[in-house]
Formats: sequence, structure tokens, C-alpha cells
Amino acid sequence: MAAEVSDSGVVRVFDTTLRDGEQSPGISLDLKEKVEIAEQLARLGVDVIEAGFPIASAGELEAVKAIAATVEGPVIAGLARVDRADIDRAAEAVAAARRPRIHTFIATSEVHMRAKLRMSPAEVLAAAVAGVQRATEHVGDVEFSCEDATRSDAEFLAEVYRATARAGATTLNLPDTVGYALPGEFGSLLAYLIDEVDADVVWSVHTHDDLGLAVANALAGIEAGARQVEVAVNGIGERAGNCSLEEIVMALRTRKGSNAVGGSEQVDTTVNSKEIARTSRLVAMLTGYQVPPNKAIVGANAFAHEAGIHQHGVMVERTTYEIMDPVDVGLEGSKIVLGKHSGRHAFIKALSDLGFHLERDDVERAFERFKGLADRKIRITDIDLEAIVVDEIYSGADEYELVSLQVAGGTHLAPTATVRLQRGEDVIDESAIGDGMIDAACGAIQRATGVEARLESFTVSSVTGGIDALGDVTLVLVGGSGGPDDPERRVTGRGVSTDVVEAAARAYLSAANRLLRVLDQQAVA
Amino acid sequence: MAAEVSDSGVVRVFDTTLRDGEQSPGISLDLKEKVEIAEQLARLGVDVIEAGFPIASAGELEAVKAIAATVEGPVIAGLARVDRADIDRAAEAVAAARRPRIHTFIATSEVHMRAKLRMSPAEVLAAAVAGVQRATEHVGDVEFSCEDATRSDAEFLAEVYRATARAGATTLNLPDTVGYALPGEFGSLLAYLIDEVDADVVWSVHTHDDLGLAVANALAGIEAGARQVEVAVNGIGERAGNCSLEEIVMALRTRKGSNAVGGSEQVDTTVNSKEIARTSRLVAMLTGYQVPPNKAIVGANAFAHEAGIHQHGVMVERTTYEIMDPVDVGLEGSKIVLGKHSGRHAFIKALSDLGFHLERDDVERAFERFKGLADRKIRITDIDLEAIVVDEIYSGADEYELVSLQVAGGTHLAPTATVRLQRGEDVIDESAIGDGMIDAACGAIQRATGVEARLESFTVSSVTGGIDALGDVTLVLVGGSGGPDDPERRVTGRGVSTDVVEAAARAYLSAANRLLRVLDQQAVA
Repeated sequence: MAAEVSDSGVVRVFDTTLRDGEQSPGISLDLKEKVEIAEQLARLGVDVIEAGFPIASAGELEAVKAIAATVEGPVIAGLARVDRADIDRAAEAVAAARRPRIHTFIATSEVHMRAKLRMSPAEVLAAAVAGVQRATEHVGDVEFSCEDATRSDAEFLAEVYRATARAGATTLNLPDTVGYALPGEFGSLLAYLIDEVDADVVWSVHTHDDLGLAVANALAGIEAGARQVEVAVNGIGERAGNCSLEEIVMALRTRKGSNAVGGSEQVDTTVNSKEIARTSRLVAMLTGYQVPPNKAIVGANAFAHEAGIHQHGVMVERTTYEIMDPVDVGLEGSKIVLGKHSGRHAFIKALSDLGFHLERDDVERAFERFKGLADRKIRITDIDLEAIVVDEIYSGADEYELVSLQVAGGTHLAPTATVRLQRGEDVIDESAIGDGMIDAACGAIQRATGVEARLESFTVSSVTGGIDALGDVTLVLVGGSGGPDDPERRVTGRGVSTDVVEAAARAYLSAANRLLRVLDQQAVA
Repeated sequence: MAAEVSDSGVVRVFDTTLRDGEQSPGISLDLKEKVEIAEQLARLGVDVIEAGFPIASAGELEAVKAIAATVEGPVIAGLARVDRADIDRAAEAVAAARRPRIHTFIATSEVHMRAKLRMSPAEVLAAAVAGVQRATEHVGDVEFSCEDATRSDAEFLAEVYRATARAGATTLNLPDTVGYALPGEFGSLLAYLIDEVDADVVWSVHTHDDLGLAVANALAGIEAGARQVEVAVNGIGERAGNCSLEEIVMALRTRKGSNAVGGSEQVDTTVNSKEIARTSRLVAMLTGYQVPPNKAIVGANAFAHEAGIHQHGVMVERTTYEIMDPVDVGLEGSKIVLGKHSGRHAFIKALSDLGFHLERDDVERAFERFKGLADRKIRITDIDLEAIVVDEIYSGADEYELVSLQVAGGTHLAPTATVRLQRGEDVIDESAIGDGMIDAACGAIQRATGVEARLESFTVSSVTGGIDALGDVTLVLVGGSGGPDDPERRVTGRGVSTDVVEAAARAYLSAANRLLRVLDQQAVA
């Protein structure tokens, strides 16, 4: 469909799932997981992947480097403050990309300049220009953002954007950092800036959903002339999250040609919308941020109809209550791909059809796991298979492995769990009682690994519907006391099993392993 | 704050959580639960409660009657198609209310008139007028909606609204039934209608979130002159849900006085925003629709800051990254109210402080349950207490009660469960093995009750954070084959316990009991 749109009507999709999205509390993706998401974003057809904030940590730097080196198609961007060290680090991170970008920013609102930066407006202006100049020494593609732009003085904004465009920025981004803007004023502000700055750049918008207006503000920006939109899959991100990729993409596509989108010009993205559902599932599985059923586009109810009147209407004529075709976002229902009689060959073929490229050892581990599940669960759908692979393969090189688990409990029994873990050649058996069986299983793992941590959140969902569904547990563990020498460390763990207590134990162990890796890295750094 | 706003600047909040919200797949609130939500909505200070669609079922009629008879403060509305029977039924349902309203509607878009109604525009116009006239014979407060208005011919809309206003409608509502509108065109359409119809009515907007634009469209409507907004708590409702109450209320309040809201006039609602968090929790608990962490206003992350830069900023000056004060939406952190040494007196006092008015038997049951939990969990917060009361008291008069449960399982054991249920004087013991322990427990309950049903969805969340949190399980059971004599019946079940398998068993049993009640009602009807 995108072919109908002229070049000037193409809205570039700048995906920040791996940067702003990953800043959601409790998300801590490792390198392999980030690369997997970036590869799926490339399949989806986004224009730019903001792969991380390289100065933030050594792990962040390595992940951006890995994405830049391996993911083909999109521009790969690294975020940097306007400081020279930040920018040089970002340049190092994206150097291997075919099309690298440095995205640099500084805050311009009165409260941020005074309370956070302790800089005068003149100092901020000079720092912004210096930062952009430094970035242009590394790459030709430089994006500049005024942080908290929507609470900044408009004339000062124009001055900063004008100066940074002259200094070589090719994309100018207007962020509503705190989700404060209303669509009318956001569109007007951008229209004013485009007019005042009058530079040959791509204007971009970055919106947040604190007042439920992220998509509307992005649309208002596009109507005012923005041709890049910054988004995150499933709308994850700081606080209430970023503008949701799937919502803005489908709003533009569904209403393409409407006067209210892009004025008289036909605007659209070049995203392959049929990859949306799968991208959403992958991000939900790896981040542990489940998609709520009433989420637009990708929620379980987005195409469900409950009231009798609605059901009747859709049966007579789909368009009575549906404005999009579920097939266009890749929701064609799960397909049964494997059963207990499927062999290794069929398994490998199914994986490769799903776009997973596994190494030999990983294939073997995933196949073993698949066989165990197929014994308990007759049919394995493509969505189950995604879950197994993601759970098994992307859990990283774990220090402790679960050998076995035994639990018992009930209304009148003290819930008790016994685990056997393996660490290299060592086998460790431990047991614990708890408030519930999950608590007992986690307690036994805590004893066996010696990892001290506090459970912060816990979510279970089923991968597919039905009583034979796989249970998918995601939890967040917090290690560290929060003191000056022992900062709090949040890690996510994920486990999949037909049994929820086993899934929880796997999730807890994967989080504990991850916490150990994080502490190791800290010790090295 | 609302006092600063003139009468003409008051935006009425029309809450449809109990009507459009309850149409979300899998939600089936019973009478007591609906009354509890309506009472909380009254505490929150909404102007109108749409309590249900009385013609839909006998249960729906009874629930609307009960709310009309007991809930004081807001207008109580019942929904009706324009048919005489529908309207008479709605009138009967709201008759006992101090301030009753009938809300009647008919579709006006070409696709709905042709494919669903099979009526000509002239027939639709005549039916709309006849419906409104009939409603005015029952009540003075009549609201009229053109269903799928945003895909209807604007001139025809104006004709229908003009005629229904003349026939006596006092509120005219513009629904974006399928979530298709963009803010600019939605505002323009309303402005055109207000001008063309030129009647002394309150204009209202009803928006859906299919493209992520529900709040923006509602705001655009208010800017164009709407002074009623139709919303649901947590944004639940058909498909991607309705405009979220908390988002539009806080958008108006946070940006009051901005030129982009309500033009030159100061607009606001009269809602007590400090009740928002509690209303959100109650609706989440009773409907089983958990609030995702990245949900605006009421999500767990709405006021959390993850990036180092953000954390630093908020520590120096809260407003660097926060545009609202969490205290204003009732998020003051959970308060510890009771412990294992608390007696009956303290328990009753805590309940009454939370606004629960329980009968003697219910107090006893809740107190027993509380003591059991206090033994396992040292501190009981106000939020835990809400969960216990909601779980124990609002589960209705159950045919089967859980006496005891015993489960065992693990990675190398077949998960096994044994339950003891009581039905009147009878005690029933059953056991089952399953794919997991929850599956086994549900299987044993299924055998013991003989209720044939399919598990459609399953969610677990913790009521509060931490390892000692209560597990809160919500599931949806589907009974009936879907055949002509045996329609599918969806019921929700909920269970709370420190053990997730016990919570799941309680949830499954409560759903099974509910399914039995639904089938009983069917047999009677």
C-alpha cells in the first residue's frame, strides 16, 4: 500500500523499543535478546532502530555494537548527551553499521536547565551546537533533540534548532518528554518551528502517553509536517510509555487519504504491517510486559466482539464493527505446526519458517524441551514454538540449571518445594517451605544459589488459549540494598511450562542467573 | 479545584463501565459486584452512571434496578434501542432512581442501516423520533445517540439530531462506535452539528481506542463544545475499549486553563481525583482486567522512573519528569492496617474506613479468611483487605464450597490434586492428574461439580508487591457447546490466596458456581 505514497509523504518509523522502551522498570534485555528484537524490527521494516544509549553501561555499548554489526536494513542509531565523551562512545557503538546515526540531545525547558543541568540558556545553546558538530565528525546522519521541548520557550527552541541544523543536524526531533502536550498545541508548536527554523531537515516527533495522548500528538505532528515518528512496540517506555508503533502505523494506514492526516498530502509508513502481531509477541515475551487484552491493534480483544448486537453486525458485514482486517496486522490465528510425532527435521523446518536461526547446540536443547512439552500437550502451535525458543535459547549462558523440582501443598499443608540445581559439575539439593508453592520453590532456589533478592512483581499469562495452554511467568527480582556501594539491580526472569509452579521456578532461576551476571559485570567495571 | 470552573465549563462524566465496559469479553459481573462498583463511582463523583442495557437479560434488568434503588448521587441511566419494548424495559429499570435517565440509540451509518438494520434513512429517522418520544413519556432526562455517527453522512446526522432534540432529547451524544475518527475531523463534525442543530441540549462524546485516539477524540469534542464525556474505568470496553475515565479526567485537570482545552473557557470535571486509584483497583479486581504497568495514570509505572537521568532529575525537582502529583490520583502507597494480632473490632473498623458496609454473616466470613491469611502473611495492607473482601463477599451464594485442597507435582512427577467440596450437607472428594498442578486442581473440581467447561483465559497478578504478596487469579470459563439450544456462556472467576494453585482453584470453583447460576437462570427464563 505504501507505494501509492510519494517520497515526501513517507513517514519514517524510528523505533526506540531498545532504548526508551527498555527503560521501563524491570526490563533488562541481554545482548542476544536485543539482537533478536532488532532483527524482527528489520523484518517489520522500520526505518531507524535506536539500539541503545552506549554511555550508560558496558553492556549497552556491546549490545549496540552487536546490532550495528549484524542487523541489515534500518539505520542504526545510538543515543548520546551533547557531551563529547557520550558522542564519541555512541560513534564507536554504531561504527560498524552500514548506515549509522548519532542521536544527541540536551534539555531546553526552564525547569530542566535550572534544576537538572544548572546551565544558562546560552550555555545550553553552545553545548548543543558543539555536540552536533562533534557528531558530524563521526557520521553524516545526525539527529538532535531538545529534551522536554514542549515545556520550553518556543523562541529559544527555534534558536537552538536553527543553530543545530546549521551545525549539521539532518533530523530535528521534538520530544514531549513528560507526556504533557495536547495535540492542538503540539501541532502548532511544530508548525511554528518548521517555519521559523526553515532548514532542509527531516522533522521528527517523540511523544509519551502520560495523558493518553501519545498517538494523537504524533498524528498532530505529522499533520504539521513531521516525517519521522519515534515509537516503541506495544507502547512500552518510561512511565506510561512511548507512542505505540502499532497504533500510529495502523492509524496512518487505516485513515490514509483522510484530510485529517497529513493535510492534502498522502502520508504513510513503509512498515510491513503483517509483521506487527509477531513483533508484539516477541517484545512481550522478552520484556515480560504482557499486552493487555484491551490494547489497541495487538490486544486479544482488539478484534473480539462481545455484545450480541456487535456479534450480529460483524457476522452480516465485517465492517459494521471492524475498521481494520486482522489479517493486515498478522493476526491470522495460531497455526498448529507440530505434534508429539514430529521429528527433528520437522522441528528445524518449523523454526526456520518462523525466522529463528539457531546454532546446533541451541537446536538440540530446544528440541529436547519441545519433546518434553509435546508429551504433555498434544498440539504445538507456531506461537507455542516461539515461546519455547525464546524461553530456552535466549535465557543466556546460565550459571545454575534446573535439574528437577518437586512441590506439594494445599489448604491444610505447609507448601513445600525441593529443587535440584546443577552448577558445572556440582549438584545442589535444597528445600524450603513458603506461603505458597511458588514462594516455596523460589525459596529453595534462593537457598541453593545463595542469591539474595526481593520479588518485585510477578505475572502469569497463557501463551495460547485453552486448558492445555503453556503458562508464561515473568517476574522482576531486585538485588542490592540500594546503598551507595550496593545499588539496587532489577532483573527480569521468564519461564514457560505447562505447570505454573515450574514456570515460576524457571523464571526465578533465570532471574537469579541474570542477577549473578549483572553483579559479575559490576565487579569487572 | 473544580470550583474555579463556571457552570458552562463543567464537563459531565458519564461512566459506562457497567454497560460498555462490561461488554469486554469474559467480564460477567453479578448484581452485588455491579452495585459495589456503582457505589464507588458515586464516591468518585461521576455525574451519570450507565448501569446497563436492561433488555439484554433478566440479570441485567435486576442489576440496573438495584443500582437505581440504592446508589445516591449520580443520574442512573439505562440503555435502550429505539424500539418501544427496549425503552419501556429501560424505564422500568431506572424507575426507582432519584434522577433517572433513558439513553436510546439507533445506527445512522450507511453500512449499519443497510447491512444490520435493513432500514432506509427515512425509516431510521422516524424510529429515532418515535423512540425519543416514548422515552419522554417515562422520564424528563433523555439521551439520544446516533450509533456509528463518525461513519455517517453529516447532513443526515444533523437531521436526526435536530428531530430528536425537538422530540425531547436533552443530551445528544456523538459516538465514534468503531474507534475510526481522528481528533481534527471529530471536533469539526461536532462543531458542525452544534451549529446546524442549534438546540438547547448538552452535547456528549463517546469514543473508542481502536487507533489509540479515544482520549484525544474526547478532548477534541470538548474543545468543540461537548460538555459530557462517556468513559470507562481503566479504559475497558468492546475491542480496544472506551475512553479511559482516569486519562480524560487527569488530562483536563492537568491542562486546565490551556488554550488547547475548551478554547477560552476553563473546563474541568467535578470528579474527586483522589478516588481514582481505588476505583481502578476495584474495577480491575472485579472484572479480572488487570491494569498494565505502562497504563497512563493508574499503571504501576505511571510514576516510576527508570533511567538514571530521569531518577536524578526527579530527586532534584519532581516536576522535571512528573506532570502530576501521584497523591492527586490517590496513589499514596499502601498503608498497613492490620496484622496477625488484630482483633475483630480493628478488622470491622478497617473495613468501614475503606467504605465497605457488610452484613453480619459476611463480616464473620471475611474475618475468618483474614485470620487465615494473617497467619501466613504478617502485614495486611488496605489493598490486601480490599482484595480479601471483594473475593470473599462478592463471590455470591455459591452452590459448592471449597473445604480443602491438596496438590503435588514437579518436573518428574505427574501433577496431582485432591479436592474436598461441600454442597449443602454433602461432602464430595475427587482427585485428578493434569498437565500442571493448576490443571490438576481444576480437573478435580470439574469432576466433583460435574460442570463441563473450557478454560479460555487465565491471569495471575499479585495484589501488592513483594514475596509475601497475595496471588490474585482471574480466569474465564466457557460453558455450552455454542449450538442453537446450548449457547456459549462466558463467566469470570476470581480467587485470592498466598498460594497460586489455591487461588486458581478458588477462581475455578467460583466460575463453576457462577456458570451453574447462569444455567439456572436460563432454565427459568
